[in-house]
Amino acid sequence: MTKIYAEIIGTMILVFLGNGVVANVLLSKTKGNGGGWLTITVGWALAVFIGILVSYPYSGGHLNPSVTIGFAITGKLNWNLVPFYIFAQFIGAMLGALLVWIFYKDHFLETKKEQDKLSVFSTGPTIKNFFSNFLSEVLATFIFMLVNCYLTKKYPIVGLGILGAFLSSLVVLGIGLSLGGTTGCAINPARDLGPRIIYSIIPIPGKGKSNWDYAFIPVLGPIVGSSGAAALYLLLFS
Amino acid sequence: MTKIYAEIIGTMILVFLGNGVVANVLLSKTKGNGGGWLTITVGWALAVFIGILVSYPYSGGHLNPSVTIGFAITGKLNWNLVPFYIFAQFIGAMLGALLVWIFYKDHFLETKKEQDKLSVFSTGPTIKNFFSNFLSEVLATFIFMLVNCYLTKKYPIVGLGILGAFLSSLVVLGIGLSLGGTTGCAINPARDLGPRIIYSIIPIPGKGKSNWDYAFIPVLGPIVGSSGAAALYLLLFS
Amino acid sequence: MTKIYAEIIGTMILVFLGNGVVANVLLSKTKGNGGGWLTITVGWALAVFIGILVSYPYSGGHLNPSVTIGFAITGKLNWNLVPFYIFAQFIGAMLGALLVWIFYKDHFLETKKEQDKLSVFSTGPTIKNFFSNFLSEVLATFIFMLVNCYLTKKYPIVGLGILGAFLSSLVVLGIGLSLGGTTGCAINPARDLGPRIIYSIIPIPGKGKSNWDYAFIPVLGPIVGSSGAAALYLLLFS
Amino acid sequence: MTKIYAEIIGTMILVFLGNGVVANVLLSKTKGNGGGWLTITVGWALAVFIGILVSYPYSGGHLNPSVTIGFAITGKLNWNLVPFYIFAQFIGAMLGALLVWIFYKDHFLETKKEQDKLSVFSTGPTIKNFFSNFLSEVLATFIFMLVNCYLTKKYPIVGLGILGAFLSSLVVLGIGLSLGGTTGCAINPARDLGPRIIYSIIPIPGKGKSNWDYAFIPVLGPIVGSSGAAALYLLLFS
Repeated sequence: MTKIYAEIIGTMILVFLGNGVVANVLLSKTKGNGGGWLTITVGWALAVFIGILVSYPYSGGHLNPSVTIGFAITGKLNWNLVPFYIFAQFIGAMLGALLVWIFYKDHFLETKKEQDKLSVFSTGPTIKNFFSNFLSEVLATFIFMLVNCYLTKKYPIVGLGILGAFLSSLVVLGIGLSLGGTTGCAINPARDLGPRIIYSIIPIPGKGKSNWDYAFIPVLGPIVGSSGAAALYLLLFS
Repeated sequence: MTKIYAEIIGTMILVFLGNGVVANVLLSKTKGNGGGWLTITVGWALAVFIGILVSYPYSGGHLNPSVTIGFAITGKLNWNLVPFYIFAQFIGAMLGALLVWIFYKDHFLETKKEQDKLSVFSTGPTIKNFFSNFLSEVLATFIFMLVNCYLTKKYPIVGLGILGAFLSSLVVLGIGLSLGGTTGCAINPARDLGPRIIYSIIPIPGKGKSNWDYAFIPVLGPIVGSSGAAALYLLLFS
Repeated sequence: MTKIYAEIIGTMILVFLGNGVVANVLLSKTKGNGGGWLTITVGWALAVFIGILVSYPYSGGHLNPSVTIGFAITGKLNWNLVPFYIFAQFIGAMLGALLVWIFYKDHFLETKKEQDKLSVFSTGPTIKNFFSNFLSEVLATFIFMLVNCYLTKKYPIVGLGILGAFLSSLVVLGIGLSLGGTTGCAINPARDLGPRIIYSIIPIPGKGKSNWDYAFIPVLGPIVGSSGAAALYLLLFS
Repeated sequence: MTKIYAEIIGTMILVFLGNGVVANVLLSKTKGNGGGWLTITVGWALAVFIGILVSYPYSGGHLNPSVTIGFAITGKLNWNLVPFYIFAQFIGAMLGALLVWIFYKDHFLETKKEQDKLSVFSTGPTIKNFFSNFLSEVLATFIFMLVNCYLTKKYPIVGLGILGAFLSSLVVLGIGLSLGGTTGCAINPARDLGPRIIYSIIPIPGKGKSNWDYAFIPVLGPIVGSSGAAALYLLLFS
């Protein structure tokens, strides 16, 4: 049970802080309004850092279904635990999204553009093209997961937790800066679908569509990318 | 007595550097004018880093009444010391605010907007709403304190001082980027009330109101948030 | 053979992420559009970090012909391996450039300025002057290589891999910020020529010239600078 | 003699990279043009990092007459060495300034504003007021030196060189962001006077005055601030 709680709390903090920086940059009348992509990616990287720090000693700090599936494929996690981890991550992500809404409620009311409100919750492509967008998520998560697998294998010192969290957040920062330009780079199904469900439920005035026809891409894309990386890892190292 | 001096000097440096970067970004004719929220939060994070480095070996480097109260609740600090710590932190914060004024005096004279002058000293909400603003300070400090308690528990290596200061400054950076969008995120009663007292006293030409009706929020909010985090921590770990 | 694969994969990731951040900042309708030089250099530094992490345990993580030649001169690498390393680095750089194109394909279609499309692949001077541009690449690579040689000599702890990668990425960030203002600071023949070859081949609509008359500068300049640094190092330390 | 060479080379790299990032941000047609104060301070912090890394094992990596004088006062350096260190630092700073000029020569020709050309070499106040400007340099260097003295005393691990260089660069970044708003915060007589001498000599077309009447402030201010910090340190710790 402790593992489950850790994944819930870790993912909740991840999404609260991660989507919080998006709110701070995109919503109206915030201190960080207009801060740009560097501000968003640094904020997200630190959300990953803090989320992993908090959950690592109990659950390994996955906070991401595609990481959980990837580690199950490489044998680092028992398959029996996978559904529980993923369930916990979705619960955590939804709670985190609720917190962002509660925290930035007055600013949602002041924000005119529908798209910006949705963007605080879930990612979306700047140029809609299912094939390219899917490929973006696959490739970004593939690189992310390959590096993660590799780090735990080759640098056992990462197991100290703090260093692992720091490295992961630097990798997330690098991938966000370099590969976040097309879809915003969810690389995490829970981080995207959980908040989208919340967005579709909560009563934000002047709310737009929840962009459900795009929703499957940041879910399937990361799983495909991560599974591919785990498979390649197995091929190379066993 | 050494603990008291350390908290005074540490908080003085914290506020001198922390409010210094706000002055550099907000006041007129400064080199950093218009630098935005990322510049402010990075500067504040480094102020925390340097402030903790300087005081950690003597007092543990709290520099923040809500941290002191939180650690008293979790049993890390003797309750007898709490009033002295808090007194020292307020003295330090007021000295730091005085230094910022002395340092940036010519630039205060050149700055037209009243609000910007006050903002160099104390935080304020972009959208005034006592309930939301209070909640912002509670939630931000809750997360901040929970992570702090947790780090000292789970990662004893943090006790080395440098690493603890570095981690704290990264946590402050993350919280500032993600949760600083509404009230500017004081998360520290001394950092906010101390400089506000100084602002109300010093003779800045064209000075506006000191926004006293808001002043209780960045004092009570952080204490409530921090106490809540400490209580939750006790519940979970004892 | 493992060394070769490691250099291919490492350089591929280096160029995919490094040129990826350029694409994110320069191409139209990206999330990071207009992010500026700080965003580009931070992204490149993290590309170096991740590229070295992945390849270091196998090949030493050169990812750069001028580093390979420099280390051969100082005796850290057997000259027999040099052609294989360089070959691998060029293959990797070309694969990375292909990935950037595939990843950002829709955004290349939306981008009007020819120069911006080429800049995603290869560096170019803002003021064309063969002598100055050549000198820029020589000097930047000279400093870069001298620091690299020196670090491996004086700080054996760098051999832990993670620290070495972190230090190298900080050095690359510093050099990019300070010495990247003239030519964009390739300091790596494979990173520049490999993607230029790809650019000249792939069918991007509205593509401009590949600026072949400049191409020799970011190839010869880094090799001269790096050889000079290695020679100076030998002179000083043996 | 090795100490002297190390200080020359370290200060040369410090000024080459440090003033290099100023050139990249201020001069016309550079890649980093308009990057702002955050870009400049991050670049300077990395210049400090690399400069110290290179010189630390030989000379302790002072690269700054006010640091040298401060350490002589606290007894960490023999007074006999002080003139040699300072001489070496000035030579290094002048060589570094020459390199910046050579490196960015074409961009100096394209730059219209006289003030921007001088700013690449030496600091200057945005609001001229001898008393305030002097005080700025005194206070900034006082904090800088106090933290430096303190770190070497309380955290012996800093002696590993890499960590010391990293900490120093973070302290410089924090001070630059927070206290650089008034005078640009030289905190180093060699870094300011050395390049000013070079500027007054070299033939830059459309060159303005070298602002000699201000030149004594970034020389005397840092020495006073640093001596004060060293004296306070002695008072507190002996």
